[in-house]
Amino acid sequence: MSATGPRLEFWYDFASTYSYLSAMRIEAQATAAGVAIDWKPFLLGPIFKAQGWDNSPFKIYPAKGRYMVRDLQRLASERGLRFTLPANFPQNSLLAARLALIGSDEGWIAPFTRAVYAAEFADGADIADRSTLWSIVNSLGLDFEPLLSRAEDAGNKQRLKGQTAQAQALGIFGAPSFLCRGELFWGDDRLDQALAFARHN
Amino acid sequence: MSATGPRLEFWYDFASTYSYLSAMRIEAQATAAGVAIDWKPFLLGPIFKAQGWDNSPFKIYPAKGRYMVRDLQRLASERGLRFTLPANFPQNSLLAARLALIGSDEGWIAPFTRAVYAAEFADGADIADRSTLWSIVNSLGLDFEPLLSRAEDAGNKQRLKGQTAQAQALGIFGAPSFLCRGELFWGDDRLDQALAFARHN
Repeated sequence: MSATGPRLEFWYDFASTYSYLSAMRIEAQATAAGVAIDWKPFLLGPIFKAQGWDNSPFKIYPAKGRYMVRDLQRLASERGLRFTLPANFPQNSLLAARLALIGSDEGWIAPFTRAVYAAEFADGADIADRSTLWSIVNSLGLDFEPLLSRAEDAGNKQRLKGQTAQAQALGIFGAPSFLCRGELFWGDDRLDQALAFARHN
Repeated sequence: MSATGPRLEFWYDFASTYSYLSAMRIEAQATAAGVAIDWKPFLLGPIFKAQGWDNSPFKIYPAKGRYMVRDLQRLASERGLRFTLPANFPQNSLLAARLALIGSDEGWIAPFTRAVYAAEFADGADIADRSTLWSIVNSLGLDFEPLLSRAEDAGNKQRLKGQTAQAQALGIFGAPSFLCRGELFWGDDRLDQALAFARHN
C-alpha cells in the first residue's frame, strides 16, 4: 500500500458495541482489499448530546437495547467472537480514546484498539478502569505511566475534542462510521461496501 | 413449500424506506430458500410515539436523515432499483396498510405491497392519495371502490390496530423486521440472516 493508494477512515467510539465487530475484522479485510485504514477514535457523547440524548440509544430505547444484545450475540457467534455486554454499559471511553490518539502517532493504535474492545466486549471488563488499560498497554510491550501522563496532557485532551468536533462536522452521527472522499458509510453492516468504494472509486 | 415448512414473518410499514428494499426482494429470495413469507403490514407511528417520537427518526435527527437518503441511493443503485424520497416524507401509510390486510386474506398482498412501495419510493408518488391507490388496485385487476369500503370498515380498522399492538408486544421497534420462532431480526441488512435462520432452525 503506497501513501497515495486507497484509504478509508474508520471512526469509532470505544463504548460502541458495533464498532467492536468492525475493529476485530477491518485490518484483515482492508489488507486483502489493498486499502489503508486511518483509525479515528472519537467520542459519541457530545454528538448524542447535540441530538438530545443523554445516554446510549440502547438505554433510552429498551426494545432497541434488548434487540442489540441479541443481534450482537448472533453476529459475534457467526464470526467466532465472544460477546459479553459489560455490567456497566455504556462505558466511559474517554481515557481509552486519549491513549489511542498516542497510538495513532506511534503505530500501535490497531492492536491497542482490538485489545480494548476484546477486554470490554469479549471479557466484559471496565475500560474506564486504569488497571484494565494498564494490562492492555503492557501486553503491547509499552509502559503505562508515561503514556498515561501524555494521554492526559492538555494538548492531547484538546486533540480528542477536535477529532470529535471533526466527526460531527463530517455528518457522523453514530459508530462505527467509515469515510472516503466525502462518502459516509454507517455501521458494521457497511464495512464491505465502504472498502469496495475506497478500492474502486 | 408445505403449510408446515419454514416460515418467516415480514413486518413492514408502507412509510418505511428500508422496508421498500426488503419488499422488492423478499419473495424471490424466500422462494429460493424454500421459506414461506407471512406479510405483516403494521403502523410504526404508535410504536414511535411510545418511544417519545412524534415523527420519523430521519426527520427528528437530520444527520441521520441525510445519511439515510444517500445510503438508500447507493443500495437501490446496487440492486437496480430506483430511489426517490417523496416530497412529503414520511407518508401517511394508513389506508395502504388497511387495504393490504384485505390482500392478505385474498392472496394479492405481495404484488400490492411491491406496487405501493414502487409508487412511493421509485416514482415519488403520494400513497395517502386515493388516486395512487386506485391505480395500484386497478393494475392488479381489482375494483377499488368495494375494496375501499371494506378497508375502512370498523372491523378492518380494528384489525390493523391489533396487528400494530401485536408488533409492539413482539418487541418490534422499527421496520422492516423479520420474526421466526421468537427470533427477531431488524432491518433489510438482516433479511439474509433471517431467511437462513428460518430455513435451518
